[in-house]
Amino acid sequence: MSCYQERLGKMWDWMAEEEIALAMFEDFEPRRDSTVRWLTGHPGDALLFLSADRRSLLAPWDMILAKARASADAIVPYNDFGRSPSKALCGAAEMLGIPAGARIEIPSSTPYPAFLGYVGELADFDIICRESGACERALDLRLEKGPEEIAILRKAAAATNKIIGLLEKKARAGKLKTEADAALLIEIESRRLGCEGTGFQTLAAGPGRSFGIHAFPPWTAEPFAGQGLSILDFGLRLDGYNTDVTLTFARDPSPKQQKMIELVEKAAEIAKGALGPGADTQRLAALVDAFFAKSKKAMPHGLGHGIGLDVHERPFVRSRYKASWELRPGMALSIEPGLYDPAHGGCRLENDFLITESGFEALTEARIIRL
Amino acid sequence: MSCYQERLGKMWDWMAEEEIALAMFEDFEPRRDSTVRWLTGHPGDALLFLSADRRSLLAPWDMILAKARASADAIVPYNDFGRSPSKALCGAAEMLGIPAGARIEIPSSTPYPAFLGYVGELADFDIICRESGACERALDLRLEKGPEEIAILRKAAAATNKIIGLLEKKARAGKLKTEADAALLIEIESRRLGCEGTGFQTLAAGPGRSFGIHAFPPWTAEPFAGQGLSILDFGLRLDGYNTDVTLTFARDPSPKQQKMIELVEKAAEIAKGALGPGADTQRLAALVDAFFAKSKKAMPHGLGHGIGLDVHERPFVRSRYKASWELRPGMALSIEPGLYDPAHGGCRLENDFLITESGFEALTEARIIRL
Repeated sequence: MSCYQERLGKMWDWMAEEEIALAMFEDFEPRRDSTVRWLTGHPGDALLFLSADRRSLLAPWDMILAKARASADAIVPYNDFGRSPSKALCGAAEMLGIPAGARIEIPSSTPYPAFLGYVGELADFDIICRESGACERALDLRLEKGPEEIAILRKAAAATNKIIGLLEKKARAGKLKTEADAALLIEIESRRLGCEGTGFQTLAAGPGRSFGIHAFPPWTAEPFAGQGLSILDFGLRLDGYNTDVTLTFARDPSPKQQKMIELVEKAAEIAKGALGPGADTQRLAALVDAFFAKSKKAMPHGLGHGIGLDVHERPFVRSRYKASWELRPGMALSIEPGLYDPAHGGCRLENDFLITESGFEALTEARIIRL
Repeated sequence: MSCYQERLGKMWDWMAEEEIALAMFEDFEPRRDSTVRWLTGHPGDALLFLSADRRSLLAPWDMILAKARASADAIVPYNDFGRSPSKALCGAAEMLGIPAGARIEIPSSTPYPAFLGYVGELADFDIICRESGACERALDLRLEKGPEEIAILRKAAAATNKIIGLLEKKARAGKLKTEADAALLIEIESRRLGCEGTGFQTLAAGPGRSFGIHAFPPWTAEPFAGQGLSILDFGLRLDGYNTDVTLTFARDPSPKQQKMIELVEKAAEIAKGALGPGADTQRLAALVDAFFAKSKKAMPHGLGHGIGLDVHERPFVRSRYKASWELRPGMALSIEPGLYDPAHGGCRLENDFLITESGFEALTEARIIRL
């Protein structure tokens, strides 16, 4: 059984429990849902329909790409539905023989005005749109990675670690002079190492810009790795799966910068000390918040987040988030303590971890590099 | 008066007509709205609130960035609202003194379940969420670019044209051997020319992959510009504004490939012949559809789209789209006829145009380059 069939099976079981006759997933701009790729292998721009009688219908924008990549019982061009999600839903309900009055679940991300449109156009059906519907069920199923996903993440992490090593070597040799040098090295090496590329725009911020949590613009031709603190936040994408790491390069740090470095490194150790199966994400993040608070510092972002087909996915490791997760073996997540100061710059250290039965496996080897 | 004040003024006038006491704009993952940047200069990750008494309140994720970049009457950290959009809306309504019972407009992209949440949490107000609300009003106001926007687009186009020239030169000299060579040249040169970078991931597809409308992955280390058809689709971003062009490189094309090139070039000429103030976008696209149909070919994507703070924005130039626009002076758009064949590859030619009083100004100089 392919991994797609296994995943679809879990979704269909859940649909039966929930008495959902048809579930719709949408992966188009501006509403992306990587679950379409998780369930079919198709890398984007498509609608996916699952019916209670355990069939799947994919409506891709690019048929040539879908024929090369997608696994589904039926593949129908999105163009055949006039490139309209509601027409596609009507068409899929007809093709899959959904009986009148049945429950059809549309994505929880459906805007309110569009929801009214579906209800009007599919008046024969019971259209439902819930905060915790089929899309969220898939996100929950994706929390614990399967063996083939873990294998991909390990490969992506190994490539990430090679690039970290290369970046350190180049920086020590004085060959990482600008933000562009760092960003382009990552772009080139990621492909050379067999990845799809980077999973998000590399954030390379030299000492003059590292105060920004997410530097804007992401990288420029400005100096990098000079006196002070430089931040480099990047991730590789392999078969759709993402790593996410942040290095800080420190050169002749001032006492205040030295203090920031020590606090961030200590925060990472504290987080690792509490990382493992059974740990609660909110409490984990609160632990680090409390540590920074003792030094009258505050981290302006969350402590970490799951990684997978999305760069940011469940579980979110935040102290003030609406939800909390108990970590379980198979979960993959990043931990990224950071401190930022408009005058002294920023320092962040981010690594990826796989939760195991006995604790965790450190996937990546990002570090604060003292030049 | 700054351009932001002028734009805000138009929004406030409209709010008065619509009797909207408070309008909310959201620019966070996964719901991006570049109107926040258009109205404040802040480049992302923020909520914006406009009140009927002509005040603006920005709630950014990164306060340091906002202080450096944003223009608003009040700037309050998003963290102060517990990073919750509904709490931020409650807080903004209080700070801006919105009276109970008043109409508050939330973004049209608000998911249905979130809409129910707002209605519950702000029971004292009349929460409205319409397909054509404040966000769409802003998108319509953005259709006709102002002089400062046109100046930026012209600069971005000039940089794009320099890179097109360089790409052609390198390709003719045999120095554009891989997709990576092309993509990295664009990344480097875009910054050297003072741009923020590229506006989207460059699509570089050599002869073996150019059949894809949007190559997947976007670019690899595979050969480029060899025998057959290679597609290069890229855009530069300057001060938030985007260009979007596509070149095709043709080397020793087969008769079928030669025919595709001729049809695409002719389609671009046909579109230009009909381009100007008063032209209707649906009819413009239908003209090209009909031309391709005469040769029993079909284009699997739209003919073009507006450009600006978004890479794809209004007006959309599509024959089967739900909406149509009459082109007016100040509108900026791309025209991109293309044909794709699983066996013979793809060919696309995309250029950007500014509609003028007398017709159009060709902003970019993309072409089909015969090697």
